[in-house]
Amino acid sequence: MRVMGVDPGLTRCGLSVIESGRGRQVIALDVDVVRTPSDEPLQKRLLAISDTVEHWMDTHRPDVIAIERVFANNNANTAMGTAQAGGVIALAAARRDIDVHFHTPSEVKAAVTGNGRADKAQVTTMITRILALQQKPTPADAADALALAICHCWRAPMIARMAAAEAQAAAARRQYAAKLKAAR
Amino acid sequence: MRVMGVDPGLTRCGLSVIESGRGRQVIALDVDVVRTPSDEPLQKRLLAISDTVEHWMDTHRPDVIAIERVFANNNANTAMGTAQAGGVIALAAARRDIDVHFHTPSEVKAAVTGNGRADKAQVTTMITRILALQQKPTPADAADALALAICHCWRAPMIARMAAAEAQAAAARRQYAAKLKAAR
Repeated sequence: MRVMGVDPGLTRCGLSVIESGRGRQVIALDVDVVRTPSDEPLQKRLLAISDTVEHWMDTHRPDVIAIERVFANNNANTAMGTAQAGGVIALAAARRDIDVHFHTPSEVKAAVTGNGRADKAQVTTMITRILALQQKPTPADAADALALAICHCWRAPMIARMAAAEAQAAAARRQYAAKLKAAR
Repeated sequence: MRVMGVDPGLTRCGLSVIESGRGRQVIALDVDVVRTPSDEPLQKRLLAISDTVEHWMDTHRPDVIAIERVFANNNANTAMGTAQAGGVIALAAARRDIDVHFHTPSEVKAAVTGNGRADKAQVTTMITRILALQQKPTPADAADALALAICHCWRAPMIARMAAAEAQAAAARRQYAAKLKAAR
């Protein structure tokens, strides 16, 4: 499975592509950070991000996009820009019929370090080790994009099982409703 | 000037097109609300909104898009969805080289009712009167989209004057810097 990880942002948007193999085997194929100048109008910044992300999707042809789920806890203004960037990235995926999954920062940290409250340095260290990289990925947004893609690779079997269980439950509900209707 | 007003949202996204004439004259050309089901994946909802908005842009060919500026004050989760929807709309405008302006809810209310803290009923009443509509626009998102477009029409001369003043100031700064350099 080929996963594109995205740490969305207007000023810096982290992008990565990872290929998962057997078990927990993961191989980094690409990683980069898109930057857009803060004095540009918002719509131009979103266009620059969208163009780069679309180019990545068309070049790497990922099976799924893993995007960081944004919360408005900390800096509300930054969160808005991050959400807008995430929106155009999800849109680019939908246009290509590529599946999109959102993971929270603590899900990502937990998947990669075993601790949902790990700091940036710990995440970077673990990413470097897991992917057997020659050097630590910088800036933090690049490391985060790699962590997101790894997180998705490792959570994918569980996500698939949950989706299957939900589909089964929905089918059972439909069957039960049909029986009830027939019994009336 | 033809202005498209957008009250962004995932569940309901208000769209309007207004043409401004002499002075404060404004004519409503179209208004509608795009709805997307909340049980659809986010990326599909964004795609549905983007497709409709792009169709409106290509049909009505607005000169400018006026979008409501979202704040994360109230409901943070809703605000995130609203920001994502706003992002894909701004992107659609950027792809067509259409200018985008954001107006805050209180700027819109102040422009339309004279009171930045007017309630929804007051805004709807004033919109109906200003546009000489046969009936009140519903739902509120439709009225808001019309209010946004009117707000932009009426604020546009002031926005243009501010942009001109800023450009003049920047030119003066550059001239002064060049003089300083020459004097050294």
